[in-house]
Amino acid sequence: MNPTLEIFSQGEEVVTGQTVDTNAAWLAQESVQLGFNVTRHTAVGDKLGDLVGLLREIATRADCCLCTGGLGPTSDDLTAEAVAEAFALPLQFDPVAYAQIERFFNFRNRPMAAINRKQALLPAGARRIDNDWGTAPGFALQYQRCWFVFLPGVPSEMRHLFDESVRTLLTDRFSLQPGQLITLKTLGIGESDLQTVLAPIALPEQVQLGFRAGIEHVETKLLFPHDFPRQHMTELVQAMAQAIGAYVFGIDGPDAPVGDLADVVNTLMNAQQRTAAFVESASQGLLAAKCIGCNWLLETRFNRAEAQAPQNPAVTADWWELAKNLAAATQQRSGADLVLVQLYQGDDALFHDKDLSIVLYNVLLTTEGFREQSHTINGTLKRKQNQAALLALDFLRRYLQDKN
Amino acid sequence: MNPTLEIFSQGEEVVTGQTVDTNAAWLAQESVQLGFNVTRHTAVGDKLGDLVGLLREIATRADCCLCTGGLGPTSDDLTAEAVAEAFALPLQFDPVAYAQIERFFNFRNRPMAAINRKQALLPAGARRIDNDWGTAPGFALQYQRCWFVFLPGVPSEMRHLFDESVRTLLTDRFSLQPGQLITLKTLGIGESDLQTVLAPIALPEQVQLGFRAGIEHVETKLLFPHDFPRQHMTELVQAMAQAIGAYVFGIDGPDAPVGDLADVVNTLMNAQQRTAAFVESASQGLLAAKCIGCNWLLETRFNRAEAQAPQNPAVTADWWELAKNLAAATQQRSGADLVLVQLYQGDDALFHDKDLSIVLYNVLLTTEGFREQSHTINGTLKRKQNQAALLALDFLRRYLQDKN
Repeated sequence: MNPTLEIFSQGEEVVTGQTVDTNAAWLAQESVQLGFNVTRHTAVGDKLGDLVGLLREIATRADCCLCTGGLGPTSDDLTAEAVAEAFALPLQFDPVAYAQIERFFNFRNRPMAAINRKQALLPAGARRIDNDWGTAPGFALQYQRCWFVFLPGVPSEMRHLFDESVRTLLTDRFSLQPGQLITLKTLGIGESDLQTVLAPIALPEQVQLGFRAGIEHVETKLLFPHDFPRQHMTELVQAMAQAIGAYVFGIDGPDAPVGDLADVVNTLMNAQQRTAAFVESASQGLLAAKCIGCNWLLETRFNRAEAQAPQNPAVTADWWELAKNLAAATQQRSGADLVLVQLYQGDDALFHDKDLSIVLYNVLLTTEGFREQSHTINGTLKRKQNQAALLALDFLRRYLQDKN
Repeated sequence: MNPTLEIFSQGEEVVTGQTVDTNAAWLAQESVQLGFNVTRHTAVGDKLGDLVGLLREIATRADCCLCTGGLGPTSDDLTAEAVAEAFALPLQFDPVAYAQIERFFNFRNRPMAAINRKQALLPAGARRIDNDWGTAPGFALQYQRCWFVFLPGVPSEMRHLFDESVRTLLTDRFSLQPGQLITLKTLGIGESDLQTVLAPIALPEQVQLGFRAGIEHVETKLLFPHDFPRQHMTELVQAMAQAIGAYVFGIDGPDAPVGDLADVVNTLMNAQQRTAAFVESASQGLLAAKCIGCNWLLETRFNRAEAQAPQNPAVTADWWELAKNLAAATQQRSGADLVLVQLYQGDDALFHDKDLSIVLYNVLLTTEGFREQSHTINGTLKRKQNQAALLALDFLRRYLQDKN
């Protein structure tokens, strides 16, 4: 049996719903991948009695507990105090933690407030987890059945600490048999269609199949047991990728994360040593924005008159003509190897109304001539904008993968 | 005292972190606004024993509990069964629920599977909550101290049921006194500096002050009791806004949400009937992308050669000169009333490294001449990009508010 693990989040902002608790989902996913059996998440606010009660409950129920929040300097940060009371451990001043907090303020040329001293008080016998990214150190301790790890609630600090040290502490302390997770990333095909095309592929009972639809793409996740034969795993993943087809833009293996769609395009563009220029309409800058850090992108342009004025050419063919002319002119001026032009058909009312749709016209000018692609997209204004950017980027990705 | 309320989410996908539990945050926020005291969130997977135990715990602890998930037709949907066992209530076939489920399938020309009959089994004495959006009806019942409401886990169905009927059921059943929430939204000033400038303002004890730092802006939140004198509330909010100064871009009252920074700029631009054009560098399209749906934005442009080539002019004055020349040329070509140009100083290494910083040079060309502003920004590549976009937009907002 895998050891059980609970997630515990502290903070009024979580319990009142001001913050969506992304820490809990992130830690749960990491823990499942390490081989834990995650059994419960709990969030409570900043009331000492609630915290003490919950810590005592968990101490008898789980083998491990990952706790976030409540390590800050202010009066509503009660975690260390609650631990001290729940487990009858005195709080002790930790000079190393204090020096780290001092250094944090010195480095930023800011005076250290008296209240920050509180963050250097740790329960007796706790193991300090150093935090070089913020002011609050984490800590860990065993009580009754459970090993508790306390981490800051700021997501970037929490993840940094987890990556830097907590993951290793967990694998050292527990006997874990992590499964092997494979993720197929797709764009342009929904969850129910994925289920339909994958239905004919028989999966062994011990393989878990799951889907996760995000704003950027849809993930098909396969969790294999740690001792599943490698060869059989590879065959199954290949069969699934083949069934889904060109919608798959990347496959994350245990050792080879491909990143998101922009990362995949970036890798291909760099490998093929190409440059590109964009002309945007419905995405209004978001296509270029997704390519931040990509030096192959020479320029982008959004011009309302260009994007919106000719909303009603007589025939669809005129849209393609318009887009191709823009692409040719842009290539001549910019000198880019590839020019992607996206126009859309639909007036303001269609663009703004979440129940109405617009039609995208993508043209890609390459060294071998033009490629065309058209999509109908719907949803809120922001969803249409994001879909327009993603579908344009994916159009580029499909061309580059064909040329690979 | 306000009645206490807990949120309870059922599902392996939540507990293993495959899904971020946005239902919990949404329901918590709605409940706080109705006047409940939200005390705890819990998520458990699909194990009958865990569900039964948790339901019994909550029945003795809270006045109300909103539960999501586990109402589907498959074998891992155990909510009704768990309720029946926990509270010793037999499951009864509900013919009205059955007819609704049948209608759902008929309407979609899909055969109704035998397993869907299960969804028409409700615990004896439960009040059915009709669901015209999906297959699973919700239900509600009192056990011991607590009134439980069970809702489907699909967010759109859950929200629809809550809006259609649950909100009214709650306000009818409980005596609630919702507080008045005021939110001051700021950009460019951090949480600790906000605390420092606000420290001299004495707040009555019954007013709750909180901060919420997001990616887009920082919120200072004031929750006043329902019977707090209106005049006193207005004075306090004004005093706080004055202490913070021009960093405040908007104030959300209970009846007047201002939206985010782009919404505020959009309102001002439309009221003043102006048009604008942007030249972007570090934001790489993101500044224009944030203004989606704003017809006053005539164009944006990102050009790597323009943004990056002259990385080392002899003196800072040359940066301003360069930006001003670009602005003047863009105004002439586009005819926009306002032209915002943002250049940045810093090579790729500085831009990409999260521990290094770049310097932004913002120039705004107006009918009365130029305005200038400079910022040093740091953090990851994506954070720098986002800050560059936000600070440029805020530069425009400050000008427009001065002219109001």
